[in-house]
Amino acid sequence: MPLVVVGSVALDSVITPTQRRDNVLGGSAVYFSYAASYFTSVRLAGVVGDDWPSEHTELLKARGIDTTGLQIVPGGKTFRWQGKYLQNMNDRETLDVQLNVMNQFDPMLPETYRRCKFLFLANGSTKLQLKVLDQCPGASLVMADTMDLWIRTEPEELHTLLKRIDGLVLNDSEAKLLTGMENLVQAGHAVREMGPRFVVIKKGEHGAMFFSEHETYVLPAYPTPDVVDPTGAGDSFAGGMMGYLAEQNNFDPKTLKEAMAYGILVASFTVEDFSLERLKRISREELTKRMMEYKRMLTF
Amino acid sequence: MPLVVVGSVALDSVITPTQRRDNVLGGSAVYFSYAASYFTSVRLAGVVGDDWPSEHTELLKARGIDTTGLQIVPGGKTFRWQGKYLQNMNDRETLDVQLNVMNQFDPMLPETYRRCKFLFLANGSTKLQLKVLDQCPGASLVMADTMDLWIRTEPEELHTLLKRIDGLVLNDSEAKLLTGMENLVQAGHAVREMGPRFVVIKKGEHGAMFFSEHETYVLPAYPTPDVVDPTGAGDSFAGGMMGYLAEQNNFDPKTLKEAMAYGILVASFTVEDFSLERLKRISREELTKRMMEYKRMLTF
Repeated sequence: MPLVVVGSVALDSVITPTQRRDNVLGGSAVYFSYAASYFTSVRLAGVVGDDWPSEHTELLKARGIDTTGLQIVPGGKTFRWQGKYLQNMNDRETLDVQLNVMNQFDPMLPETYRRCKFLFLANGSTKLQLKVLDQCPGASLVMADTMDLWIRTEPEELHTLLKRIDGLVLNDSEAKLLTGMENLVQAGHAVREMGPRFVVIKKGEHGAMFFSEHETYVLPAYPTPDVVDPTGAGDSFAGGMMGYLAEQNNFDPKTLKEAMAYGILVASFTVEDFSLERLKRISREELTKRMMEYKRMLTF
Repeated sequence: MPLVVVGSVALDSVITPTQRRDNVLGGSAVYFSYAASYFTSVRLAGVVGDDWPSEHTELLKARGIDTTGLQIVPGGKTFRWQGKYLQNMNDRETLDVQLNVMNQFDPMLPETYRRCKFLFLANGSTKLQLKVLDQCPGASLVMADTMDLWIRTEPEELHTLLKRIDGLVLNDSEAKLLTGMENLVQAGHAVREMGPRFVVIKKGEHGAMFFSEHETYVLPAYPTPDVVDPTGAGDSFAGGMMGYLAEQNNFDPKTLKEAMAYGILVASFTVEDFSLERLKRISREELTKRMMEYKRMLTF
């Protein structure tokens, strides 16, 4: 089944302890789309300025991603993010954010997008996520991401959103912030009680936790020694997860767990190089191979 | 097979964000012994003062733990540790350490101990660990723990020790300190190259990683919502792991992985109450039951 994603499309500048890259392809909807494209057809909605290199659009199209919903604002500048990773490659400092065209982004989804059954509301303001949701009344599985900024600045909208979506993906510190709870098992269930049928807490290099009414589980990250750039890992995780669900056209408990494992594995590739560089070099077969190793790792 | 452990025996005072306990039973060798006692017979060596409540010895004996090697120093005071956990229940502050009789501890293992095939060198100075090792030349599986203090103050002795043991258990920050590496997969293998055939990195609430020449894997922690006091989790982990290996009288790759899972599960019980309180209330059957849940959690 086709999968719609709405979120940021960006040019990132990333500094790690040993390297740097300037103005590389990034953004939540981009990482999500590319990750999901290994499983299903993806329709991306977002906004860029006319400084956006058309080769980026071509790259997405080459993976079968529908970019009809990518608005180009004449005279506008693309959203830019600059960040620096600390020695541990987990903590990062945001050095600069230029919202640019994201400031006025008012998503109007093409008709083909509005009829989709699978919808992901990637990182963006909660108000914007609600606007998108209103345009897709027939979606059967809606998942969303959020972040500390929206938890702090749009708490009412967020609580409205949580009652209208099926699944929320957020990271450990955001789950603690949203609930005021330090124990992640308690926090996960507390978020679930705010509305969504299931909640996924991303723990970066430590994997991810899943919470539904009757299930609580944790899957570890795939242990890669080659972490080059963690940017986009969380969005790739969500893309891999929801891409698999859309491919299977199913979201029963068994499929959700398989999907979470695929999300973890796609993210493990993403971090092995800057931007989409590593994902560009893999095929579905390599994902399947790593999945076999991962399953073997968890079997005893 | 019987399993010998030499390490600290302590009276702990623990402050958590909501509760406190003073002078409760603790120490690395105590947590290790009690955890291992669910699997095999254990012989504990350590030292206490004559302030040591005999009921603690009785408690250990009641689980079949041999305390012949527990020296009581007349007029001496037992090792005391006081710590305070921060809100996240992972980070802690050591408020006070009184080494007392541990200062002069010169372990002389009873003859029955010296013939043991399974030996664990729990937390204690590296010099002391080497002295113990010299007394057990026939051991077929020797594992050890270490900590930041010995990595900093006894690096030469530690490198000598690492060449003489089969397995090292240490936590994530210690692995980074010992190797200067931030990526735990790289750090784990780097420690292994210092001597031991296998290395286990404990990650607290995030589980544990295993490294041998041909294997790298991670198992997550069991997600418990009831973390009351994390003290002794690492020693319980090691006790559960090595207790299972001694019970199976085997340490092939398959058994090592099962053993690591048992270590994780025993530790998940330990943190659910202060001191040994939670472990005192469980049976091997409850461990088996949680193991079934844990395996189900990791199957998809």
